[in-house]
Amino acid sequence: MEQRVSLITLGVADLKRAWSFYQQLGWQGQEVEETVFVQAGGTAVVLWSRAKLALDCGVADERIAGFGGVVLAHNVRSEAEVDTVFAAAEAAGATVTKPPTKTFYGGYAGYFLDPDGHAWEIAHNPGFELTTDGSIVIPDFTAS
Amino acid sequence: MEQRVSLITLGVADLKRAWSFYQQLGWQGQEVEETVFVQAGGTAVVLWSRAKLALDCGVADERIAGFGGVVLAHNVRSEAEVDTVFAAAEAAGATVTKPPTKTFYGGYAGYFLDPDGHAWEIAHNPGFELTTDGSIVIPDFTAS
Repeated sequence: MEQRVSLITLGVADLKRAWSFYQQLGWQGQEVEETVFVQAGGTAVVLWSRAKLALDCGVADERIAGFGGVVLAHNVRSEAEVDTVFAAAEAAGATVTKPPTKTFYGGYAGYFLDPDGHAWEIAHNPGFELTTDGSIVIPDFTAS
Repeated sequence: MEQRVSLITLGVADLKRAWSFYQQLGWQGQEVEETVFVQAGGTAVVLWSRAKLALDCGVADERIAGFGGVVLAHNVRSEAEVDTVFAAAEAAGATVTKPPTKTFYGGYAGYFLDPDGHAWEIAHNPGFELTTDGSIVIPDFTAS
Protein backbone atom coordinates (compact mmCIF):
# COMPACT_ATOMS: atom_id res chain seq x y z
CA MET A 1 0.00 0.00 0.00
CA GLU A 2 1.60 3.22 -1.14
CA GLN A 3 1.82 6.10 1.30
CA ARG A 4 -0.89 8.39 0.07
CA VAL A 5 -4.47 9.34 0.71
CA SER A 6 -6.57 9.94 -2.38
CA LEU A 7 -9.82 11.14 -0.89
CA ILE A 8 -10.88 12.36 2.52
CA THR A 9 -14.63 11.97 2.67
CA LEU A 10 -16.48 13.84 5.37
CA GLY A 11 -19.93 12.47 6.11
CA VAL A 12 -22.41 15.31 6.43
CA ALA A 13 -26.01 15.58 7.60
CA ASP A 14 -26.91 18.43 5.24
CA LEU A 15 -24.81 18.78 2.09
CA LYS A 16 -25.96 22.33 1.36
CA ARG A 17 -25.06 23.50 4.86
CA ALA A 18 -21.69 21.76 4.80
CA TRP A 19 -20.75 23.02 1.35
CA SER A 20 -21.85 26.54 2.21
CA PHE A 21 -19.52 26.44 5.22
CA TYR A 22 -16.48 25.46 3.14
CA GLN A 23 -17.39 27.89 0.38
CA GLN A 24 -17.41 30.67 2.95
CA LEU A 25 -13.85 29.65 3.78
CA GLY A 26 -13.02 30.24 0.14
CA TRP A 27 -13.09 26.71 -1.21
CA GLN A 28 -14.17 25.90 -4.72
CA GLY A 29 -15.33 22.51 -5.93
CA GLN A 30 -17.79 20.58 -8.01
CA GLU A 31 -21.15 19.32 -6.86
CA VAL A 32 -22.15 16.14 -8.67
CA GLU A 33 -24.98 13.81 -7.73
CA GLU A 34 -25.30 15.14 -4.18
CA THR A 35 -21.55 14.91 -3.65
CA VAL A 36 -19.03 17.73 -3.50
CA PHE A 37 -15.46 17.20 -4.69
CA VAL A 38 -12.77 19.70 -3.71
CA GLN A 39 -9.31 19.26 -5.18
CA ALA A 40 -6.86 19.81 -2.33
CA GLY A 41 -3.33 19.39 -3.59
CA GLY A 42 -2.72 15.78 -4.54
CA THR A 43 -5.74 14.62 -2.59
CA ALA A 44 -9.38 15.65 -2.58
CA VAL A 45 -11.86 16.47 0.14
CA VAL A 46 -15.30 15.02 -0.53
CA LEU A 47 -18.55 15.96 1.17
CA TRP A 48 -21.21 13.28 1.05
CA SER A 49 -24.25 12.20 3.01
CA ARG A 50 -23.13 10.61 6.22
CA ALA A 51 -25.91 8.02 5.98
CA LYS A 52 -24.98 7.07 2.42
CA LEU A 53 -21.31 6.98 3.32
CA ALA A 54 -21.97 4.60 6.22
CA LEU A 55 -24.15 2.42 4.02
CA ASP A 56 -21.55 2.29 1.27
CA CYS A 57 -18.90 1.56 3.87
CA GLY A 58 -20.87 -1.31 5.35
CA VAL A 59 -21.07 0.11 8.86
CA ALA A 60 -23.95 1.18 11.05
CA ASP A 61 -24.58 4.92 10.99
CA GLU A 62 -24.91 5.39 14.71
CA ARG A 63 -25.43 9.00 15.59
CA ILE A 64 -22.38 10.29 17.36
CA ALA A 65 -22.37 13.44 19.42
CA GLY A 66 -18.76 13.20 20.51
CA PHE A 67 -15.30 13.11 19.06
CA GLY A 68 -14.95 11.09 15.86
CA GLY A 69 -11.27 10.45 16.44
CA VAL A 70 -9.95 12.10 13.27
CA VAL A 71 -8.53 15.61 13.00
CA LEU A 72 -7.57 17.35 9.76
CA ALA A 73 -4.84 19.95 10.04
CA HIS A 74 -4.41 22.89 7.72
CA ASN A 75 -0.95 24.33 8.17
CA VAL A 76 -0.26 27.91 7.17
CA ARG A 77 2.78 30.12 6.83
CA SER A 78 2.29 32.59 9.66
CA GLU A 79 0.50 33.18 12.93
CA ALA A 80 -1.46 35.96 11.28
CA GLU A 81 -2.77 33.50 8.72
CA VAL A 82 -4.02 31.24 11.52
CA ASP A 83 -6.03 34.17 12.87
CA THR A 84 -7.35 35.02 9.41
CA VAL A 85 -8.63 31.48 8.82
CA PHE A 86 -10.13 31.37 12.29
CA ALA A 87 -11.99 34.62 11.73
CA ALA A 88 -13.42 33.27 8.48
CA ALA A 89 -14.38 29.98 10.13
CA GLU A 90 -16.12 31.72 13.00
CA ALA A 91 -17.97 33.97 10.59
CA ALA A 92 -19.07 30.84 8.70
CA GLY A 93 -20.43 29.27 11.88
CA ALA A 94 -17.61 27.03 13.05
CA THR A 95 -17.58 25.87 16.66
CA VAL A 96 -14.26 26.95 18.12
CA THR A 97 -13.07 24.33 20.56
CA LYS A 98 -9.65 25.87 21.15
CA PRO A 99 -8.81 29.43 20.12
CA PRO A 100 -5.38 29.87 18.52
CA THR A 101 -2.63 29.84 21.09
CA LYS A 102 1.11 29.29 21.29
CA THR A 103 2.06 25.62 21.17
CA PHE A 104 4.75 23.69 23.02
CA TYR A 105 6.68 23.18 19.77
CA GLY A 106 7.04 26.88 19.12
CA GLY A 107 4.06 27.18 16.84
CA TYR A 108 0.61 28.73 17.00
CA ALA A 109 -2.55 26.73 16.49
CA GLY A 110 -6.22 26.34 17.30
CA TYR A 111 -9.08 23.97 16.59
CA PHE A 112 -12.63 24.29 15.37
CA LEU A 113 -15.44 21.96 14.36
CA ASP A 114 -17.30 22.25 11.07
CA PRO A 115 -21.14 22.11 11.08
CA ASP A 116 -21.00 18.29 11.23
CA GLY A 117 -18.51 18.18 14.06
CA HIS A 118 -15.48 17.35 11.90
CA ALA A 119 -12.41 18.74 13.64
CA TRP A 120 -9.87 21.02 11.98
CA GLU A 121 -6.63 22.30 13.38
CA ILE A 122 -5.29 25.49 11.82
CA ALA A 123 -1.60 25.64 12.62
CA HIS A 124 1.56 27.56 12.02
CA ASN A 125 4.39 25.13 12.71
CA PRO A 126 7.78 26.63 11.79
CA GLY A 127 9.32 23.15 12.04
CA PHE A 128 7.23 21.69 9.23
CA GLU A 129 8.11 23.10 5.82
CA LEU A 130 5.34 24.07 3.44
CA THR A 131 6.45 24.02 -0.19
CA THR A 132 5.27 26.63 -2.66
CA ASP A 133 2.37 24.38 -3.72
CA GLY A 134 1.30 23.98 -0.09
CA SER A 135 2.59 20.44 0.38
CA ILE A 136 3.86 19.68 3.86
CA VAL A 137 7.26 18.10 4.38
CA ILE A 138 7.77 16.14 7.58
CA PRO A 139 11.34 16.83 8.72
CA ASP A 140 13.88 14.12 9.45
CA PHE A 141 13.64 14.13 13.23
CA THR A 142 16.87 12.20 13.61
CA ALA A 143 18.81 14.96 11.87
CA SER A 144 18.43 17.53 14.62
CA MET B 1 -8.24 29.08 3.49
CA GLU B 2 -6.29 27.33 0.76
CA GLN B 3 -7.56 24.00 -0.55
CA ARG B 4 -5.22 21.58 1.09
CA VAL B 5 -4.95 19.24 4.04
CA SER B 6 -1.59 19.17 5.76
CA LEU B 7 -2.06 16.43 8.31
CA ILE B 8 -4.63 13.70 8.82
CA THR B 9 -4.36 12.66 12.44
CA LEU B 10 -5.93 9.38 13.44
CA GLY B 11 -6.59 9.04 17.14
CA VAL B 12 -5.52 5.61 18.35
CA ALA B 13 -5.99 3.68 21.57
CA ASP B 14 -2.67 1.83 21.31
CA LEU B 15 0.06 3.47 19.24
CA LYS B 16 2.15 0.32 18.95
CA ARG B 17 -0.79 -1.71 17.68
CA ALA B 18 -1.84 1.00 15.23
CA TRP B 19 1.65 1.58 13.88
CA SER B 20 2.26 -2.14 13.54
CA PHE B 21 -0.89 -2.38 11.43
CA TYR B 22 0.23 0.31 8.99
CA GLN B 23 3.77 -1.03 8.91
CA GLN B 24 2.37 -4.40 7.87
CA LEU B 25 0.74 -2.58 4.97
CA GLY B 26 4.19 -1.41 3.98
CA TRP B 27 4.19 2.10 5.39
CA GLN B 28 7.32 3.74 6.71
CA GLY B 29 7.43 6.70 9.05
CA GLN B 30 9.01 8.27 12.06
CA GLU B 31 7.99 7.73 15.66
CA VAL B 32 8.68 10.77 17.80
CA GLU B 33 7.40 11.41 21.32
CA GLU B 34 4.65 8.79 21.07
CA THR B 35 3.53 10.13 17.71
CA VAL B 36 4.01 8.54 14.30
CA PHE B 37 4.41 10.72 11.20
CA VAL B 38 3.98 9.15 7.77
CA GLN B 39 4.70 11.31 4.73
CA ALA B 40 1.89 10.62 2.25
CA GLY B 41 2.39 12.70 -0.85
CA GLY B 42 1.91 16.35 -0.04
CA THR B 43 0.14 15.55 3.19
CA ALA B 44 1.02 13.38 6.17
CA VAL B 45 -0.84 10.77 8.15
CA VAL B 46 -0.24 11.03 11.88
CA LEU B 47 -1.00 8.44 14.53
CA TRP B 48 -1.45 9.84 18.02
CA SER B 49 -3.19 8.94 21.23
CA ARG B 50 -6.89 9.49 20.79
CA ALA B 51 -7.17 10.79 24.36
CA LYS B 52 -4.35 13.29 23.87
CA LEU B 53 -5.75 14.33 20.51
CA ALA B 54 -9.17 15.01 22.03
CA LEU B 55 -7.59 16.93 24.88
CA ASP B 56 -5.47 19.02 22.52
CA CYS B 57 -8.52 19.59 20.36
CA GLY B 58 -10.61 20.78 23.26
CA VAL B 59 -13.33 18.16 22.91
CA ALA B 60 -14.56 15.38 25.16
CA ASP B 61 -13.09 11.98 24.34
CA GLU B 62 -16.30 10.07 24.44
CA ARG B 63 -15.74 6.47 23.56
CA ILE B 64 -17.37 5.75 20.26
CA ALA B 65 -18.13 2.29 19.02
CA GLY B 66 -19.76 3.35 15.80
CA PHE B 67 -18.98 5.20 12.62
CA GLY B 68 -16.80 8.28 13.05
CA GLY B 69 -18.10 9.90 9.91
CA VAL B 70 -14.79 10.16 8.06
CA VAL B 71 -13.50 7.77 5.40
CA LEU B 72 -10.05 7.87 3.83
CA ALA B 73 -9.78 6.50 0.32
CA HIS B 74 -6.67 5.02 -1.19
CA ASN B 75 -7.09 4.82 -4.94
CA VAL B 76 -5.00 2.39 -6.94
CA ARG B 77 -4.35 1.73 -10.59
CA SER B 78 -6.02 -1.65 -11.10
CA GLU B 79 -8.58 -4.05 -9.66
CA ALA B 80 -5.78 -6.49 -8.89
CA GLU B 81 -4.09 -3.86 -6.74
CA VAL B 82 -7.29 -3.44 -4.74
CA ASP B 83 -7.21 -7.16 -3.99
CA THR B 84 -3.53 -7.03 -3.09
CA VAL B 85 -4.04 -4.23 -0.57
CA PHE B 86 -7.07 -6.00 0.86
CA ALA B 87 -5.13 -9.21 1.34
CA ALA B 88 -2.40 -7.32 3.19
CA ALA B 89 -4.93 -5.48 5.32
CA GLU B 90 -6.74 -8.68 6.26
CA ALA B 91 -3.43 -10.33 7.14
CA ALA B 92 -2.64 -7.33 9.33
CA GLY B 93 -5.93 -7.69 11.18
CA ALA B 94 -8.21 -5.22 9.43
CA THR B 95 -11.96 -5.60 9.85
CA VAL B 96 -13.40 -5.90 6.37
CA THR B 97 -16.77 -4.16 6.28
CA LYS B 98 -17.27 -4.50 2.52
CA PRO B 99 -15.18 -6.86 0.39
CA PRO B 100 -14.05 -5.42 -2.94
CA THR B 101 -16.83 -5.39 -5.47
CA LYS B 102 -17.74 -3.69 -8.73
CA THR B 103 -19.07 -0.18 -8.20
CA PHE B 104 -21.86 1.70 -9.96
CA TYR B 105 -19.32 4.06 -11.55
CA GLY B 106 -17.46 1.27 -13.30
CA GLY B 107 -14.82 0.85 -10.65
CA TYR B 108 -13.91 -1.75 -8.05
CA ALA B 109 -13.68 -0.97 -4.36
CA GLY B 110 -14.03 -2.23 -0.83
CA TYR B 111 -13.81 -0.94 2.72
CA PHE B 112 -12.04 -1.99 5.89
CA LEU B 113 -11.52 -0.62 9.37
CA ASP B 114 -8.10 -0.26 10.99
CA PRO B 115 -7.60 -1.48 14.59
CA ASP B 116 -9.10 1.76 15.92
CA GLY B 117 -12.12 1.65 13.65
CA HIS B 118 -10.87 4.25 11.16
CA ALA B 119 -12.42 3.48 7.79
CA TRP B 120 -10.46 3.07 4.57
CA GLU B 121 -11.78 2.58 1.09
CA ILE B 122 -9.42 0.93 -1.37
CA ALA B 123 -10.64 1.80 -4.84
CA HIS B 124 -9.86 1.50 -8.49
CA ASN B 125 -11.77 4.30 -10.18
CA PRO B 126 -10.88 4.56 -13.87
CA GLY B 127 -12.57 7.98 -13.99
CA PHE B 128 -10.18 9.57 -11.49
CA GLU B 129 -6.66 9.98 -12.85
CA LEU B 130 -3.72 9.08 -10.66
CA THR B 131 -0.55 10.89 -11.67
CA THR B 132 2.84 9.19 -11.56
CA ASP B 133 3.45 10.49 -8.03
CA GLY B 134 0.11 9.08 -6.89
CA SER B 135 -1.76 12.38 -6.72
CA ILE B 136 -5.41 12.14 -7.61
CA VAL B 137 -6.96 14.49 -10.15
CA ILE B 138 -10.69 15.12 -9.87
CA PRO B 139 -12.01 15.36 -13.43
CA ASP B 140 -14.02 18.28 -14.75
CA PHE B 141 -17.46 16.73 -14.52
CA THR B 142 -18.97 19.36 -16.79
CA ALA B 143 -16.65 18.37 -19.65
CA SER B 144 -18.20 14.96 -20.29
